[in-house]
Amino acid sequence: MKKIKVGIVGGTGYTGVELLRLLAVHSGVELAVITSRGEAGLPVADMFPSLRGYVDLRFSDPAQVDLSVCDVVFFATPNGIAMQQTRELLAKGVRVIDLAADFRIQDVAVWEKWYGMSHACPDLIAQAVYGLPEINREKIKSAQLVANPGCYPTAVQLGFLPLLEAGVVDVQHLIADSKSGVSGAGRKAEVHTLFAEAGDNFKAYGVAGHRHLPEISQGLSGMAQDKVGLTFVPHLTPLIRGIHATLYARLNKEVDLQQLFEARYANERFVDVLPAGSHPETRSVRGSNQCRIAVHRPQGGDTVVVLSVIDNLVKGAAGQAVQNMNIMFGLSENHGLEIVPLLP
Amino acid sequence: MKKIKVGIVGGTGYTGVELLRLLAVHSGVELAVITSRGEAGLPVADMFPSLRGYVDLRFSDPAQVDLSVCDVVFFATPNGIAMQQTRELLAKGVRVIDLAADFRIQDVAVWEKWYGMSHACPDLIAQAVYGLPEINREKIKSAQLVANPGCYPTAVQLGFLPLLEAGVVDVQHLIADSKSGVSGAGRKAEVHTLFAEAGDNFKAYGVAGHRHLPEISQGLSGMAQDKVGLTFVPHLTPLIRGIHATLYARLNKEVDLQQLFEARYANERFVDVLPAGSHPETRSVRGSNQCRIAVHRPQGGDTVVVLSVIDNLVKGAAGQAVQNMNIMFGLSENHGLEIVPLLP
Amino acid sequence: MKKIKVGIVGGTGYTGVELLRLLAVHSGVELAVITSRGEAGLPVADMFPSLRGYVDLRFSDPAQVDLSVCDVVFFATPNGIAMQQTRELLAKGVRVIDLAADFRIQDVAVWEKWYGMSHACPDLIAQAVYGLPEINREKIKSAQLVANPGCYPTAVQLGFLPLLEAGVVDVQHLIADSKSGVSGAGRKAEVHTLFAEAGDNFKAYGVAGHRHLPEISQGLSGMAQDKVGLTFVPHLTPLIRGIHATLYARLNKEVDLQQLFEARYANERFVDVLPAGSHPETRSVRGSNQCRIAVHRPQGGDTVVVLSVIDNLVKGAAGQAVQNMNIMFGLSENHGLEIVPLLP
Amino acid sequence: MKKIKVGIVGGTGYTGVELLRLLAVHSGVELAVITSRGEAGLPVADMFPSLRGYVDLRFSDPAQVDLSVCDVVFFATPNGIAMQQTRELLAKGVRVIDLAADFRIQDVAVWEKWYGMSHACPDLIAQAVYGLPEINREKIKSAQLVANPGCYPTAVQLGFLPLLEAGVVDVQHLIADSKSGVSGAGRKAEVHTLFAEAGDNFKAYGVAGHRHLPEISQGLSGMAQDKVGLTFVPHLTPLIRGIHATLYARLNKEVDLQQLFEARYANERFVDVLPAGSHPETRSVRGSNQCRIAVHRPQGGDTVVVLSVIDNLVKGAAGQAVQNMNIMFGLSENHGLEIVPLLP
Repeated sequence: MKKIKVGIVGGTGYTGVELLRLLAVHSGVELAVITSRGEAGLPVADMFPSLRGYVDLRFSDPAQVDLSVCDVVFFATPNGIAMQQTRELLAKGVRVIDLAADFRIQDVAVWEKWYGMSHACPDLIAQAVYGLPEINREKIKSAQLVANPGCYPTAVQLGFLPLLEAGVVDVQHLIADSKSGVSGAGRKAEVHTLFAEAGDNFKAYGVAGHRHLPEISQGLSGMAQDKVGLTFVPHLTPLIRGIHATLYARLNKEVDLQQLFEARYANERFVDVLPAGSHPETRSVRGSNQCRIAVHRPQGGDTVVVLSVIDNLVKGAAGQAVQNMNIMFGLSENHGLEIVPLLP
Repeated sequence: MKKIKVGIVGGTGYTGVELLRLLAVHSGVELAVITSRGEAGLPVADMFPSLRGYVDLRFSDPAQVDLSVCDVVFFATPNGIAMQQTRELLAKGVRVIDLAADFRIQDVAVWEKWYGMSHACPDLIAQAVYGLPEINREKIKSAQLVANPGCYPTAVQLGFLPLLEAGVVDVQHLIADSKSGVSGAGRKAEVHTLFAEAGDNFKAYGVAGHRHLPEISQGLSGMAQDKVGLTFVPHLTPLIRGIHATLYARLNKEVDLQQLFEARYANERFVDVLPAGSHPETRSVRGSNQCRIAVHRPQGGDTVVVLSVIDNLVKGAAGQAVQNMNIMFGLSENHGLEIVPLLP
Repeated sequence: MKKIKVGIVGGTGYTGVELLRLLAVHSGVELAVITSRGEAGLPVADMFPSLRGYVDLRFSDPAQVDLSVCDVVFFATPNGIAMQQTRELLAKGVRVIDLAADFRIQDVAVWEKWYGMSHACPDLIAQAVYGLPEINREKIKSAQLVANPGCYPTAVQLGFLPLLEAGVVDVQHLIADSKSGVSGAGRKAEVHTLFAEAGDNFKAYGVAGHRHLPEISQGLSGMAQDKVGLTFVPHLTPLIRGIHATLYARLNKEVDLQQLFEARYANERFVDVLPAGSHPETRSVRGSNQCRIAVHRPQGGDTVVVLSVIDNLVKGAAGQAVQNMNIMFGLSENHGLEIVPLLP
Repeated sequence: MKKIKVGIVGGTGYTGVELLRLLAVHSGVELAVITSRGEAGLPVADMFPSLRGYVDLRFSDPAQVDLSVCDVVFFATPNGIAMQQTRELLAKGVRVIDLAADFRIQDVAVWEKWYGMSHACPDLIAQAVYGLPEINREKIKSAQLVANPGCYPTAVQLGFLPLLEAGVVDVQHLIADSKSGVSGAGRKAEVHTLFAEAGDNFKAYGVAGHRHLPEISQGLSGMAQDKVGLTFVPHLTPLIRGIHATLYARLNKEVDLQQLFEARYANERFVDVLPAGSHPETRSVRGSNQCRIAVHRPQGGDTVVVLSVIDNLVKGAAGQAVQNMNIMFGLSENHGLEIVPLLP
């Protein structure tokens, strides 16, 4: 079979190197080009020695490279970059998967408020498919432009999904208490994510409002077919990879929760509902595209507690992007993603 | 002034060594005796080299030592030990501060259910004072027997206290999403708290029921003067010291939350209400007896979010025990507790 | 091709679960049996949820299982177990790879001194092949019994090998300053490897003598064809996986060190000599079977410094064992071992 | 007694906040002024909430503040700042303690080579006293300008000192294999010290040459009264605070090593020689001004191994600076430095 020609724009961040880790041994793709404005000319493996022997490419200058030779281009860039290049790529028949947030929010005014910039191509937003395969698999198959979900949004939406689709909880008062490893903040030089700042420390942040809030709310509202009320509190926890979402909702119908979750995800390769009474650990998905979920009803009360874990760089970013690519190009959805998590 | 003669039963765990750290430089006390069944005869500083030069005592065999020479005895033992020795000590005029759970729950049936043993002296429970100074300061002054609060209960109760006393939230649906550093599990050899298990990992545990649930519920019910409904989800996070409690409640009265919290704790030396919009970090209290709290009302909705951090070994254990001792013996409440947190 | 039937004795430790991670997706093997005395009957994936979907086996009672159906049996057991079962397995034509130390030391008196027990089958030691493929590849091909090297010994020997074979250093005064992640201590419940003990802490241990010293000395003496003098200082460092060996020797001949190392390892798939001036990081081999090495000559003096990193659970244990199995059974040496390291 | 008026230039880095932690509760000083170009006007405790309740000062603009009101000024600045202001301060009778490197190297040409800049006041170097009290106590008493030693240099020099003074080792081939926690790199936003880069990772750096090499060599040469040959290899280890130096030298005289070390440091409050056979841990000095040392002679050979640990921010920086201030102003050397290390 002909290999998919892949381009990566912005290969120097964590989602970029994670895409490279996955794609370097993905037998269905050919890595054609990786760009970086700052590192043009540098062999990729000089920056990331973990890739020595697997990636021979050098970073290309984005101004000098022709991405139209690619079948698909991944944007592993800061917010606001993909929207500047997508129109041209689509016009040339190149499919686009944006790992940033440019096409995640359908309401452009909401997007512009939270991201603090004007959108460069608001007309393309409507044709973008939100790349959560567990909801949008059919649309992803033919999508030309996929908005790859954020890390928190993936963990939170997969955890709430069965409850909202089944209509068994009060959707006006959902709570998502979420904890992320520090790689979620990216590979930018910043003081608050230094080892000596974030290590041996735990804190909430963005309680007043975090950019993933409107993304999650949009997704949950779609599931509930009603506007939801969500309190979303993200926390920074001293681990490198991993998101743990602890979700709270109030039941307003009797339901067998375990059965509900198992049935909803019975055919999902990358969502694993644990046996009743379980507590998923972030390390049980480390390096893999898995989401593991457990559902509890403490003391038999009316509060349901869902625990949902993912690796923020895999199912929360690069792995889900590869999953989307597999779907878009007719490969088996798990192609290149059968990775046993690294434990310990 | 005559120094308080202090005994410590069970000095080999983390609360024991933390008591030693605090008491070794507390100018109002004389460390008279430290017991350990397993380590009798060993110099304390051989086990904990951090104490070299500060603690010259050896561990004593509990069977051979006369604790009645002490003015106060701290029990830094597993649950179920203090209750076996307290009656005799009290009879001899020795005051007792139990850092374990033996006297924390007033309803003995509830205690016996959660702790899985018969209580050795149920009649003494009623005279035990729950050692949360911010609520029980007056009773602590004359207490002969103080039940030092648990770590989670301290962080959660101090966070909810102003809301419940003011009667401004729905007390039937309180949520305490709590995260603890690994030292909270004690210095016992167990697989799940090994570095290679708990490191770079995050998980919830005890969602179905944790021993601190009835303790917290009892305390909150007292504040609310009504039986509360509480969902308590503890999590293990890869830091050594620190508890971060994220608390959720639904407002049922309009109130200036910032003002409410600041007023309630205006005269509390060890509770620090941060400016509006803040996010307390666990490291901002590392090694100190401080609790730092911030209160939020995201998007102006009806859900209030309280963030409360303590060092689980200090305000959550040994520091609060020393605070209680200071109160019991008429010392300044902050005597020996003016410790600047260690950051970074 | 017919798959290799594999048995694992002792599957509950870190080398056991790591073997399972590698073998579960190794297309050349069939996992036939995994034993555990303590966990017989338990599904393996219940103990290690990371294996859910990959390993369906349950732990078998070693007393009830017939390992002679296997082509090869891996012992991932404490020292002293393999030697009790090896004779019978070899007699039945089963090949054995011992990940513990039972067959690593050729001088049985030395072994018995350092390991504190009598050897159960000293006559088998001579036929055991020390499983360091970079030295013993030919012997491993036909070996019935392979002694898989220790983690420190692998990193240290691969670092010194080119220098000793070339005879360019004073072999009487070699220094191996070695640092290990905490998983090297195994998955035993012990106080000193608790998160709250080993976290945010660094220490040397075993300076007076460590069991890997005679193993390394034996190997280095073989390379030098002379008895070497070695000072070996192991340290515990707060990371989960990884060994970093910093090696010092005094040059007694002029030589192009970079060229010497590159030439020696030119054909070794799992030893990567970095460009001059490099500093290998442990995370650059995390989860992979790679050893990365850099060689330095600070200030142009006569002291050579070699930096050698491996993942202690892969090239230092389970990965090297699989590499040995591949060699023994005529598979490509890298079969199932083409794993891109997990970074970050 | 009249309090010492203290100024701190550059209070926003880790040595600055550590000085504040120590001086805020030092009863012999009055914190008069703290400067920061970037943060002028900001309350110090807003940047470091750990100081809330202890430090009420705001950062001052260095251009607007008169430091001549101070008795002593600490420079907690990057290299190259102190040398620009020292002459004027000394002229006004203000004593200066520089925590950076401006006055550590007596040979200005060597300094300029390693630090890559011209020295602004080479004539002042000769009058600067190197602030290692264990060697220079008498000179420090009357010093107007103290060059506070670097972190690695403190740990390494204290470890080698007894051996070199006694003349029992080959000084041409000293090895210092040193490991530092990440706070040693400072509170600058840089990629390589991010949590997701430095966490769960171990690496050497600067093997070809590190700025602390000439500083250490100068110190050791002074002790040996001969030019020494030193191989210095620093490593970055994933802990926040702590330096562990593992030192190697070859004995050329018989000597009772334990006795030698104990005798040399018998009267030193901040150097603790552990019993024979010990392995000091970095956490045993966390937050304190202590250096703990153990000396070994593995297998009775001619290689001596010294293990030396300090907290890089205390004895390796701010604590030693306070110790120097105490000596300069006639206070007890341990004034404000009787801090029990924080363990766990």
